[in-house]
Amino acid sequence: MTYCVGMRLDKGLVFMADTRTSAGVDNFAVTRKMFSFEVPGERSIVIMTAGNLATTQAMISLLEERSKTTEERDPSILRQSTMFQVARLVGDTLNEVIVNSSPNGQGAADQFRASVILGGQIGTGKPTIFLIYPEGNFIEITDDTPFFQIGETKYGKPILVRTYDREMSFEDAVKLLLVSFDSTVKSNLSVGLPFDLMIYERDSLNPMRLTRIDATDSVYQAISNGWGDALKDAFLQLPSYTLKD
Amino acid sequence: MTYCVGMRLDKGLVFMADTRTSAGVDNFAVTRKMFSFEVPGERSIVIMTAGNLATTQAMISLLEERSKTTEERDPSILRQSTMFQVARLVGDTLNEVIVNSSPNGQGAADQFRASVILGGQIGTGKPTIFLIYPEGNFIEITDDTPFFQIGETKYGKPILVRTYDREMSFEDAVKLLLVSFDSTVKSNLSVGLPFDLMIYERDSLNPMRLTRIDATDSVYQAISNGWGDALKDAFLQLPSYTLKD
Repeated sequence: MTYCVGMRLDKGLVFMADTRTSAGVDNFAVTRKMFSFEVPGERSIVIMTAGNLATTQAMISLLEERSKTTEERDPSILRQSTMFQVARLVGDTLNEVIVNSSPNGQGAADQFRASVILGGQIGTGKPTIFLIYPEGNFIEITDDTPFFQIGETKYGKPILVRTYDREMSFEDAVKLLLVSFDSTVKSNLSVGLPFDLMIYERDSLNPMRLTRIDATDSVYQAISNGWGDALKDAFLQLPSYTLKD
Repeated sequence: MTYCVGMRLDKGLVFMADTRTSAGVDNFAVTRKMFSFEVPGERSIVIMTAGNLATTQAMISLLEERSKTTEERDPSILRQSTMFQVARLVGDTLNEVIVNSSPNGQGAADQFRASVILGGQIGTGKPTIFLIYPEGNFIEITDDTPFFQIGETKYGKPILVRTYDREMSFEDAVKLLLVSFDSTVKSNLSVGLPFDLMIYERDSLNPMRLTRIDATDSVYQAISNGWGDALKDAFLQLPSYTLKD
């Protein structure tokens, strides 16, 4: 499994991904699931992947390879004019890999499935995030749905739903994501540290820097250890349920 | 889907179940999933069910019918001498219904699957809870695993893990379950109000009374509305993540 979240704030975009891949509990490894494509001053794009690792690695390799070709009309992620066009390109590439992996047709494709969160900004377009399905189609983030999750989405969702605020700072957004990821890690062995983080400041069009947060990070430890106590305090604030006799 | 939790405290046992059954989002109804079997002063037993409704209703009907027969050696839930024996009986009955529903054998049984939480106390035995699988086998609660969930278990689990305390009062346990159920209801349409509640006081061997908590319950409303604010306060208590430049 995997856990990735892409979130849109007024200030920009925040992305977090875990790094555990596993084929059974006796075979797991640390693998990066977050990738960036950029042209400083022009575009800044992040891709996060969940699903079959052979599929997602092949998709990323194809996207990288094609971004280095020199032809005019090549399908390069670095030359699409809008984020919508990038989403179509990524969706087509993802679907192409899945179909190629399953010569027996769509029915056999299940085990090669993967999904993608794509986010970023190009030129004067708005910063945005897409959730791309294995079939290659996709949905875009809206004010009503201000974040997308892929992988093991359930354990970490309630805190996102209750605490997300579009006006929050990047620092608070990272704190929120760490709580959500920590709840997931505590409940699903196939999601694991370290976490990869990228932050994109609206309209900056700067390359994003990947920050890796590991288990020894003191703030992560304080959040992980403190959340239980904080939750208990929150719980005490609520009115008690009185049992009727 | 469904959401049921059975929890053991030092003071006794607490059970909560939602009441929504659905066959697609366009066909849903309120159905009780919590049933009790008792002989005052001798035994007090609760069963909660998740899964195929035809299976669970048939299982409950068989258990009730057999508890009313007068033979000496009949498989009645009211005449087993220990909770372990009751768990075997319920497991066998559950598996019997599933196998009878699937004439084509085990492979076809998937759609008729159901699982059960069984809890209670008989005589001088300890109060305990079992989680019973569709195959008829089961596991028993321990101090390390002090609660069982069936159905849509993921959204409501983190708060249970972080806040459960074996010494908590029944009132606090019900409050905790309401928070867990509220998080689940907010994330999965197939779990819905009203909630059914039963509380068993250790060594009382009294019949349990079913309390139904519906959406108009003022304490539930205060908990549901207050939890978001309480979570935000908890979130503010945590240290901020400082972004490195």
